Amino acid sequence: MEKQTLLYEGKAKQVYSTNEPNILWVHFMDQVTALNGKRKTQIAQKGQLASAISDYLFNYLTDKGIANHYLKKVGPVDQLVKKVEILPLEVVVRNLAAGHFVTKYGVPMHQKLTATIHEFYLKNDELDDPFMNDEQIMALNLATKAEIATLKAQADLVNQYLTTLFKEINIELVDFKLEFGYDETQTLILADELSPDNMRLLDMTTHASLDKDVFRQQSGDMTSGYQIVLDRLINRK
Amino acid sequence: MEKQTLLYEGKAKQVYSTNEPNILWVHFMDQVTALNGKRKTQIAQKGQLASAISDYLFNYLTDKGIANHYLKKVGPVDQLVKKVEILPLEVVVRNLAAGHFVTKYGVPMHQKLTATIHEFYLKNDELDDPFMNDEQIMALNLATKAEIATLKAQADLVNQYLTTLFKEINIELVDFKLEFGYDETQTLILADELSPDNMRLLDMTTHASLDKDVFRQQSGDMTSGYQIVLDRLINRK
Ligand SMILES: Nc1ncnc2c1ncn2[C@@H]1O[C@H](COP(=O)(O)OP(=O)(O)OP(=O)(O)O)[C@@H](O)[C@H]1O
Ligand SMILES: Nc1ncnc2c1ncn2[C@@H]1O[C@H](COP(=O)(O)OP(=O)(O)OP(=O)(O)O)[C@@H](O)[C@H]1O
Ligand SMILES: [Mg+2]
Ligand SMILES: [Mg+2]
Repeated sequence: MEKQTLLYEGKAKQVYSTNEPNILWVHFMDQVTALNGKRKTQIAQKGQLASAISDYLFNYLTDKGIANHYLKKVGPVDQLVKKVEILPLEVVVRNLAAGHFVTKYGVPMHQKLTATIHEFYLKNDELDDPFMNDEQIMALNLATKAEIATLKAQADLVNQYLTTLFKEINIELVDFKLEFGYDETQTLILADELSPDNMRLLDMTTHASLDKDVFRQQSGDMTSGYQIVLDRLINRK
Repeated sequence: MEKQTLLYEGKAKQVYSTNEPNILWVHFMDQVTALNGKRKTQIAQKGQLASAISDYLFNYLTDKGIANHYLKKVGPVDQLVKKVEILPLEVVVRNLAAGHFVTKYGVPMHQKLTATIHEFYLKNDELDDPFMNDEQIMALNLATKAEIATLKAQADLVNQYLTTLFKEINIELVDFKLEFGYDETQTLILADELSPDNMRLLDMTTHASLDKDVFRQQSGDMTSGYQIVLDRLINRK
């Protein structure tokens, strides 16, 4: 497979076309951002760790039968994925209160939620990814009722599988953000990345953050948490 | 009925107890605020106009069978209402895009929405009344699924009746905010106020705003719009 033109450079990854029209080459950068890109830095090994964790988690979900874009690793920071038409909605799932949810609603940090919460955010950097409810999404024709139901159901499956997987390695899955898109057969599949850049993970014993919150809060060395997650995944069982 | 102790002074109204434990005395002030109280001013006649319009609209909805808190006018700026336990949620209904909805989602002003939108906001001034989706409301035990369904159904009925009423007098109902509460029989009923302080109204011919947007945008004399609304309501048929 040949890496061709740079199609898109985001905050964490570069996306290239390949000689196969339905396959993209994703390059994980060491760049880390917070506050929707307003704070930005390079952290050595971050790309490699995020790519390796994402590789592990997508393979795990593929084994469980979750339709997704992932094909394979082609280097320490490079992956091949199926090209999809990304839905302009980010899907957030919350098991415990954290991040914006805590400050916005005045809920105690890490409070267990009586039911899992799904949230949708419009993927639009200019508008700062605004939060939307289901009716707004439908009224603006961003997704149909059926698509919203599929997104929630798929996100629930991912949540169940990943929660169980992480529990095995003494890690609590607090929340995460997913992206979905339509592949060439018009199937809605899971895409983007599954790494501590897009999920909150707590060591169940020490309650230490093993995710990007360490960068957001400037509370220490972020990659050591990512390394712990990767090591525990690779060494499980 | 005797007005007794001041129980609460909000941004637009004072609420007093009376000699009847289940009845409150609501006094409409001339105060107008925007930006959640950060901009504040006194506008002569505003209290009187908002009170008179609210009186008209609650009586209209009572005739249509919508359960609500309204009892009667006891002066040009004073009303008696049934005391309720207000739910900590504001219910917004949108027929056309306007206000925050336009800036937050990048939608053209006054675009017709393909379906009516309901939005819920947590009534919490310290948190700046944050927007919530249904699952967040349920997970934080602010309302049950059944209560949310009742709020939406009641808001839809209000929307249908008021849209029809305003169309009769050449006014378009763009959006509005409702509050609900439990009365002493544990019935969830419509409460608070129904006036251009809490709804957007457009003259269908001139497209002029006949509501608080005139104050928000500092685009002219707000009360003349309120007066037009009241005059057309009183003179209808
Ligand atoms: N399978 C795929 N096909 C097409 N695009 C994809 C696929 N998977 C992920 N993407 C998109 O590739 C980009 C990945 O880059 P990155 O994660 O750095 O973006 P970002 O800075 O988060 O910005 P964005 O707001 O666009 O997501 C995202 O726009 C993502 O939606
Ligand atoms: N029937 C009722 N019983 C009890 N409280 C009521 C009733 N109707 C309205 N209220 C409450 O009375 C207050 C009216 O005051 P006002 O409209 O000035 O408040 P506000 O500044 O909008 O602030 P708030 O954020 O408390 O609504 C509101 O808190 C409203 O919820
Ligand atoms: Mg991204
Ligand atoms: Mg009010």
